[in-house]
Amino acid sequence: MNQQLTLKDFKHKISVTVRFHEVDMLRVCYNAVYINYFETARLEYAKAAGLIPKGGIFSDGNLFFIVRNEINYSGYAHHDDILDVYSRISFIKKSSFGYDHLIVNLRTNKVIVDGKVVIVHVDPKTRMSAPLPESFIEKVKVFEPTVQVLRK
Amino acid sequence: MNQQLTLKDFKHKISVTVRFHEVDMLRVCYNAVYINYFETARLEYAKAAGLIPKGGIFSDGNLFFIVRNEINYSGYAHHDDILDVYSRISFIKKSSFGYDHLIVNLRTNKVIVDGKVVIVHVDPKTRMSAPLPESFIEKVKVFEPTVQVLRK
Amino acid sequence: MNQQLTLKDFKHKISVTVRFHEVDMLRVCYNAVYINYFETARLEYAKAAGLIPKGGIFSDGNLFFIVRNEINYSGYAHHDDILDVYSRISFIKKSSFGYDHLIVNLRTNKVIVDGKVVIVHVDPKTRMSAPLPESFIEKVKVFEPTVQVLRK
Amino acid sequence: MNQQLTLKDFKHKISVTVRFHEVDMLRVCYNAVYINYFETARLEYAKAAGLIPKGGIFSDGNLFFIVRNEINYSGYAHHDDILDVYSRISFIKKSSFGYDHLIVNLRTNKVIVDGKVVIVHVDPKTRMSAPLPESFIEKVKVFEPTVQVLRK
Repeated sequence: MNQQLTLKDFKHKISVTVRFHEVDMLRVCYNAVYINYFETARLEYAKAAGLIPKGGIFSDGNLFFIVRNEINYSGYAHHDDILDVYSRISFIKKSSFGYDHLIVNLRTNKVIVDGKVVIVHVDPKTRMSAPLPESFIEKVKVFEPTVQVLRK
Repeated sequence: MNQQLTLKDFKHKISVTVRFHEVDMLRVCYNAVYINYFETARLEYAKAAGLIPKGGIFSDGNLFFIVRNEINYSGYAHHDDILDVYSRISFIKKSSFGYDHLIVNLRTNKVIVDGKVVIVHVDPKTRMSAPLPESFIEKVKVFEPTVQVLRK
Repeated sequence: MNQQLTLKDFKHKISVTVRFHEVDMLRVCYNAVYINYFETARLEYAKAAGLIPKGGIFSDGNLFFIVRNEINYSGYAHHDDILDVYSRISFIKKSSFGYDHLIVNLRTNKVIVDGKVVIVHVDPKTRMSAPLPESFIEKVKVFEPTVQVLRK
Repeated sequence: MNQQLTLKDFKHKISVTVRFHEVDMLRVCYNAVYINYFETARLEYAKAAGLIPKGGIFSDGNLFFIVRNEINYSGYAHHDDILDVYSRISFIKKSSFGYDHLIVNLRTNKVIVDGKVVIVHVDPKTRMSAPLPESFIEKVKVFEPTVQVLRK
């Protein structure tokens, strides 16, 4: 990460518990599983920010594709460890936006994973990138006042 | 299993290799993963029997739901073990049909898993069970002459 | 299931939420995922019954292997549906014991899945089945008074 | 990626087929699944380079932890698509080394995913980073002559 994020930079978190099938033969949470945790955290974040349509994700025709995942592992988690997953939308561009994530293992109280995810808004017909709806941007600005709006 | 199946009862097999993320903290292939192997095996079986439409599964509007999985574990597999997954359609009823599976670990040459899966043909609109298409039944009878046709 | 179980037969439940990566292309929770839910439910059940050693599962040298999974699907779940997963130990034999599970989708309030799982106690050295510890049996009897003790 | 990699930069590839449970509700391969493909590809790469001990990974006491995953998605894959996964070790530092990956969807013949993974050699007792064994470095240099050796 360019600049070191700390928990103070986040207002949203969820808790997850490491499940048995998520642990690998080294007895630690398998590295790809954290992407699932990020995904679960973003759903709750998007709900809290009013970004999810009534009928569930994608039910209003707005598609979103992940175009980049970036994850750093500085610690690990065992089976049944409880993890706090922090999320925030950090920037908005014309058709895409980015999330930051931090994961804290409550057993050790240490940050074990940080991540950045970039998501693009997609036209469901052409499957090409499409400008983010204004209403989406306004809701993000209200929920996350420090978000960087990089679109012109 | 009511009667013990042997490899001689099967004409179709695929091979899979146990991946790192499929192994659990006891260093054996996690029990639910075999359901994925069964699924992969059935796709190839169905292709071989001519049961998959040109555009891929479900592309012709025929939906199939699994209504029962039954798996017995008599051995285990480690990371990178090569497994032979045997499949056959064992019976056909009016709207449903059943698969038998056996899995052999090539490292030990032992059967480690057997399973039975029941699948129902579903009307895509009502999501209720619907009679199997005649063409489906005919193809199965050709590919698997010993199949039990239990429909009246 | 031989006899139809109802929620009244269970005293233990957990809740899980269907995650995005657990949903398949038919937009329903993938059939193997319920095995993970059963596993997560059993961990909490075993904790509640005092069956988990202080250091976490397997930390006291007692190994347990699943020897049978049996699952029936009578309904389905969508992304973000909340499910109640009910568990009970239904029987104890000399070296093995069985769990019953029911899963209720809170969106529809219907039982969507039921399952039976058989687990064998394994000697960590020989990896052969070994008699269940008496202390294990006593704890189960206290927590689940209706358990059938089938050992002689 | 800083500089655009092309298939010519790679000498090692494996093929994988997208499985049913790896596809999400948008009918494309779920983004985290590519990390599993990378992992599977690296195992075969490491075998080809002579880096895997006889008894399987980790069997010689050398532990390796992933400390960074970076993935860009420029396309997608459907169920049953065949993908070529290209791998190379791109750099070696004192205690860590990096992989580059490209994934080509054979249905469209397009690169759909690229990734960079950083792995650290870990002392199994302290779980702290430890210098890479000389024999490891020598084998990599033989197998991948263009590898950048950045250690001093």
